Amino acid sequence: MLPEGNFSSVVFELLATDSSTKARYGRLTTAHGTVETPIFMPVGTQGSVKTLHPDELKLLGSEIILGNTYHLWLRPGQETIRELGGLHRFTSWDRPILTDSGGFQVWSLAKTRKITEEGVQFQNHLDGSPALLTPEKSMEIQATLGSDIAMVFDECPPYPCERSYAEESTALTTRWAERCRIWHADYSPDFFPDAPTNTNGDENSLPSARRQLCFGIVQGSSYQDLRAASARDLAMLDFDGYAVGGVSVGEPEEEMFRAVEHSEPFLPPEKPRYAMGLGTPPQMLEMIARGVDMFDCVHPTRSARHGLAFTNDGPIHIKNARFERDKSPLTEDCHPHLADFSRAYLRHLFKAGEMLALRLLSFHNLDFYLRLVRNARKAISEGQFEEFRSSFCERYNHKRT
Amino acid sequence: MLPEGNFSSVVFELLATDSSTKARYGRLTTAHGTVETPIFMPVGTQGSVKTLHPDELKLLGSEIILGNTYHLWLRPGQETIRELGGLHRFTSWDRPILTDSGGFQVWSLAKTRKITEEGVQFQNHLDGSPALLTPEKSMEIQATLGSDIAMVFDECPPYPCERSYAEESTALTTRWAERCRIWHADYSPDFFPDAPTNTNGDENSLPSARRQLCFGIVQGSSYQDLRAASARDLAMLDFDGYAVGGVSVGEPEEEMFRAVEHSEPFLPPEKPRYAMGLGTPPQMLEMIARGVDMFDCVHPTRSARHGLAFTNDGPIHIKNARFERDKSPLTEDCHPHLADFSRAYLRHLFKAGEMLALRLLSFHNLDFYLRLVRNARKAISEGQFEEFRSSFCERYNHKRT
Repeated sequence: MLPEGNFSSVVFELLATDSSTKARYGRLTTAHGTVETPIFMPVGTQGSVKTLHPDELKLLGSEIILGNTYHLWLRPGQETIRELGGLHRFTSWDRPILTDSGGFQVWSLAKTRKITEEGVQFQNHLDGSPALLTPEKSMEIQATLGSDIAMVFDECPPYPCERSYAEESTALTTRWAERCRIWHADYSPDFFPDAPTNTNGDENSLPSARRQLCFGIVQGSSYQDLRAASARDLAMLDFDGYAVGGVSVGEPEEEMFRAVEHSEPFLPPEKPRYAMGLGTPPQMLEMIARGVDMFDCVHPTRSARHGLAFTNDGPIHIKNARFERDKSPLTEDCHPHLADFSRAYLRHLFKAGEMLALRLLSFHNLDFYLRLVRNARKAISEGQFEEFRSSFCERYNHKRT
Repeated sequence: MLPEGNFSSVVFELLATDSSTKARYGRLTTAHGTVETPIFMPVGTQGSVKTLHPDELKLLGSEIILGNTYHLWLRPGQETIRELGGLHRFTSWDRPILTDSGGFQVWSLAKTRKITEEGVQFQNHLDGSPALLTPEKSMEIQATLGSDIAMVFDECPPYPCERSYAEESTALTTRWAERCRIWHADYSPDFFPDAPTNTNGDENSLPSARRQLCFGIVQGSSYQDLRAASARDLAMLDFDGYAVGGVSVGEPEEEMFRAVEHSEPFLPPEKPRYAMGLGTPPQMLEMIARGVDMFDCVHPTRSARHGLAFTNDGPIHIKNARFERDKSPLTEDCHPHLADFSRAYLRHLFKAGEMLALRLLSFHNLDFYLRLVRNARKAISEGQFEEFRSSFCERYNHKRT
């Protein structure tokens, strides 16, 4: 049964679709502005995209970032963020924010989890305190955070996963999704006092959503029929968008692609799709070709902090001795913010343990990801996506001697 | 005996002197631009002012930064920096750089030091390799780095220090200073190919120095007559400027002031004076009142990384629980770069271990130091320095209940 609530306004527009793949070019309207898709969302787990200033995220052209409900709930806590005016004001970020539900972190970080119909009891990873996260509580925290897009609270099964466990888990996720949908329709903020009324000055664009959007999450592990059932059941609940969850949890890449392929046909085409926690640059393009519109991943920033930099010819390890006296910039077309620095200098900063190195590589890797999705959009709108995908992947994966 | 060399061109102008103290407002001309004094030089030990991008240093109005010869010699090494075109190009910093000589780091960091007439044999702190640093070698490395101001290689005695050791050490430092002066006159770069020919567009200003400047370092421990003798002997060598060294090495604050008071009367008034490794904000003002023009210190950036922020009412510890829900910015007049962030947010970033916190506090503390010396300049030029010093220190040191 569909809960009531103003979910009918159009928040997603398809601007172009690819003829030879399922790739889509779209525009999503949120309370804090519009976002063009395909989009990559930098991850700001604890209220900060690691090492970067919000001004730098804007310099990168970041349109939307992600915040982690689990982490922010534990620290600084719901009441602190409420008093500070919500996550946008707290972090000085005035563009869209998507918050996850905490389901994945409870699975990956918390200790002594106990899953019941009500929710998940666990000990948090910071000080071991007991806590209970339920669908309603997750939605309540996300309402306090005031994110533009809230995610439903799901159970993320491990990989590999027994059929019987996956069946029960998927059914539980669907029941929880319904509870989230009901809570959200009844209580979620439908008005953002500090949201801009017109975000891009284009009179023909859709008006900004004046309420928090809510996305469902498809589960089902690696079972085709469970993925299909999950997607169908969630579609009945009429969410603003749909995520594919339970991916990038240790499964082979082919399994990951299949999880999306088995879900996508049952998702409403007029709603945005989001593959959670992905991925490498080629994986994103493969997912875009399968009809996915949104991505988030710690990969670009986390690997930057380990000295890995993305290039069109694949990733390079800046600490490698071959860069010791390399005068060239990180990439031939790298962002002006770091174009003046040689690979030799970046290597030196890493070897010397200088934090500037982590900043510059984080910035570069996000630039690489954000440029990649912008180029994908352009290719889709020009009917060139398949050529773009194959030529990018061929160069990126080419083994150099 | 004075070595030959083109040290006669005027590189320092006194623009104003205070009537009630020895404070001076001046202008120093270097190959990469002019610097107004009193000045604070942020410390870029390993080719990076920790956590900050060069663009941010410019946003802060940094006119000159410091590089550490000892650290850069060990890593990335003299040949690497030579191949990369010198320290300015290597670090993408086109404004003045002062390099220290390595004397202090050999004393404070290196292991199994053995001091001879020739120089210092030691094991470096990174991998324990044996190395020899001599006056000539230090000058050669600084010539390779291409700094605007090189410092002579000195021996830094410990505190406290026996009279007999201090006598020998001070005499050795003077002999080494003469060797540095000779090497510098013979071999140092007197032409910077990438230095701007006119740095401030003011036709009445002095032309830029087209050669590396060289400063002597007064030693003498806590002995008044040794400080006086050291200053007199160095003045005979006609350096471009004079530093007071062997301060901030564990001695009481009064001893530190006395080391400057005992040196200053014997230093040529038409040359800039530099107190090395200082200090707290009130200490800098006390030193300015005693005729010092230049400062460097890791205090603002190092304490920032421990959560300490400078304010006009004294330092605060941002991790303190009282800031948990404090909506106000770090200070009422803080830089726009961090004015949007609440103390509560900065505290959260620190508690969560987010690197952005270290960046923002480093930026803030340098802004505080650089603003302080700019305000000191203004006060001197307006004949208000004594009022400025006393009112700043009174408010800064006022014990709050």
